[in-house]
Amino acid sequence: MTSAGLRDVGDDVSVITSTEAGTTSAAVFTQSLFAGASVLLDREIVGRGDARAVVTVAKNANVATGATGDANAREVRELAAQVAGVAPEQTMVASTGVIGRLYPMDQLRSAFMTMSAAARQEPTSPAGGGADALAAARAMMTTDTHPKTATASIDGSDATIVGIAKGVGMVEPNMATMIAVLCTDAAIPADVLDAEFRACVDESFNSLSVDTDTSTSDTAIVMASGAAGHVDRDAFRTALNAVCLDLTRQLARDGEGATKLLIVEVTGARDRAQAKRVAKAIVNSPLVKTAVHGADPNWGRVAMAIGKLGRADGPDQDINPQAVRIVFGDLETYPAFPGEQELARLSEIMRAEEVTIGVDLGLTAPDAQCGARVYGCDLTRDYITINADYTT
Amino acid sequence: MTSAGLRDVGDDVSVITSTEAGTTSAAVFTQSLFAGASVLLDREIVGRGDARAVVTVAKNANVATGATGDANAREVRELAAQVAGVAPEQTMVASTGVIGRLYPMDQLRSAFMTMSAAARQEPTSPAGGGADALAAARAMMTTDTHPKTATASIDGSDATIVGIAKGVGMVEPNMATMIAVLCTDAAIPADVLDAEFRACVDESFNSLSVDTDTSTSDTAIVMASGAAGHVDRDAFRTALNAVCLDLTRQLARDGEGATKLLIVEVTGARDRAQAKRVAKAIVNSPLVKTAVHGADPNWGRVAMAIGKLGRADGPDQDINPQAVRIVFGDLETYPAFPGEQELARLSEIMRAEEVTIGVDLGLTAPDAQCGARVYGCDLTRDYITINADYTT
Repeated sequence: MTSAGLRDVGDDVSVITSTEAGTTSAAVFTQSLFAGASVLLDREIVGRGDARAVVTVAKNANVATGATGDANAREVRELAAQVAGVAPEQTMVASTGVIGRLYPMDQLRSAFMTMSAAARQEPTSPAGGGADALAAARAMMTTDTHPKTATASIDGSDATIVGIAKGVGMVEPNMATMIAVLCTDAAIPADVLDAEFRACVDESFNSLSVDTDTSTSDTAIVMASGAAGHVDRDAFRTALNAVCLDLTRQLARDGEGATKLLIVEVTGARDRAQAKRVAKAIVNSPLVKTAVHGADPNWGRVAMAIGKLGRADGPDQDINPQAVRIVFGDLETYPAFPGEQELARLSEIMRAEEVTIGVDLGLTAPDAQCGARVYGCDLTRDYITINADYTT
Repeated sequence: MTSAGLRDVGDDVSVITSTEAGTTSAAVFTQSLFAGASVLLDREIVGRGDARAVVTVAKNANVATGATGDANAREVRELAAQVAGVAPEQTMVASTGVIGRLYPMDQLRSAFMTMSAAARQEPTSPAGGGADALAAARAMMTTDTHPKTATASIDGSDATIVGIAKGVGMVEPNMATMIAVLCTDAAIPADVLDAEFRACVDESFNSLSVDTDTSTSDTAIVMASGAAGHVDRDAFRTALNAVCLDLTRQLARDGEGATKLLIVEVTGARDRAQAKRVAKAIVNSPLVKTAVHGADPNWGRVAMAIGKLGRADGPDQDINPQAVRIVFGDLETYPAFPGEQELARLSEIMRAEEVTIGVDLGLTAPDAQCGARVYGCDLTRDYITINADYTT
């Protein structure tokens, strides 16, 4: 990785390469109507399942940039492929930052020239290389305050999974995610990798929301080099879930301006989709988020947030307020109607660095697999400060 | 109106009465699943179309308060009906404030006693009484910084419409609104009043969003006393729209912590519903709202907000980014790709107290009635400050 001068300090361009020819891959992307040039390019090749390189560009998303933006994305892919020593069709591009600005191509070209020279000495791969992963994670950062990495070993094998991620604002992934790149040396057929990755993303990155705004550049990629040989599928799933969930919690905790991790667990829904709608309504409510920030025991706002799903033409008319139970940590607030003493305890629970709100809808048994857990953060003055003059 | 001690300073309970026996009425309410005890009570009688009194209570919503809350709402209605000198079934209750706390009934009972004594001297009606309307508007306020009233005369008659409203947070009305009470001395049959009011609310209060959070207590009521005789229906509609739109703009401009009015106009959609979805996605995006706050010419966030509607299972897959046009005031930013000079002008446009963002989706002709205009505000540090410790 190297600096193309897109940020004031530090690396902003990074190429992650898998050195094994038999590497398999899978990826999911944003469903934004304004998906960026990088995402459009990646979609053309994702079906091959044999990507071996990922280039990340920070501070400029290359989104809403017209035909010039498309051509620039294609050139960046060519240049990155040369650095990685693989075909352009095996190279994914992931780019986030300001929307509607053209890449500074002169700076990028000279950055790739520098990397090409360095790559001739030592190829980069985060799997197995902790320092490499950290540097690559740092190179993806935009308003992240620190790089995010996670590792898990796969039981019954010598294989490990390493993941890196960025993204702290414009985060409500939609069937996709911010930028996350995972590498493993396990051998996994491409179709199995794809199925396991999609299921995992649904419970991790897709259960995350910082601010309800979905990025035009969300991209999550996994590459499996096979160097460590075959692994048990269940063990692989366990390790993959651990890495993605770890990254998800780090992303939520570092949400722009955030001081707290907010976890919402919904049980007893009609089905998992309903549980997720309710959980998202709560974790996204600015009034719940500000109350959590101020440790204000204003639990009624959780009832309000659930109530928002009551549109006459919506699918949640079966939710009955009389059957709902709301808890903060282990303290029931509804229908318990807390007195002054319980409100003081509630305020104390809300002062913690991690606040968990539980809601049981009472439509099915709590253990009937009709639940969902989502991750978010509080809403603070610093979110405003960071975003009121992002480009200037 | 009088003080029951629910707020530190000023009146918090108000009874608005129409003195004419033939008064007609219409009302719409929140569709929240956690609709408050007041709303549930009002829904029982709204079909009668003959309400003559509205009691408003500020600072306590009486929501999620169980059977005791229901009984309290019924008692408040009885007491207010006595003040107004009408039947309880002709009395609407509208109440906003903290959720999940019981009314301080002792304070409320003594407040109604004071009002009963005063009412024997002089009944209150905002229609025709500017000072009365202002005082009633003030008595409804929670975090509003000033009372909101609006008046319009009905062409070709001596009749007028007076409206008052409150609501600056937890505002994204859903087929309903915050609290608004309108009175007119025009004679309008109840069914006509209902039809005209619903249509009007859709383009005014239901086109407003401060923070995406829908109140459990949204209530909009109109009463027509008939004292000024029959009026032309078109003239009535024009005056009704003028009053509701005026109040809507005042509510948006006074959104919690707001420094600016944000108007989003969408044209060229497939239908009006789609135009409203796009407009709401933009006016509700925290990243658009913070950019407007900081006058940051980060127009790409509008493209991002439109892109959020791209869910594969959603109804907006026909939106084509290539056909979209984005303007701020009269400055096109997409697909114009503004240079440094245009970005400086954009920043200037965004520094105004009223910022209008226009989006043409290019799916139908701009004048094909497939548009929508919505009202919101910027997102500021003060929104956080107001809401982080609302109850403490």
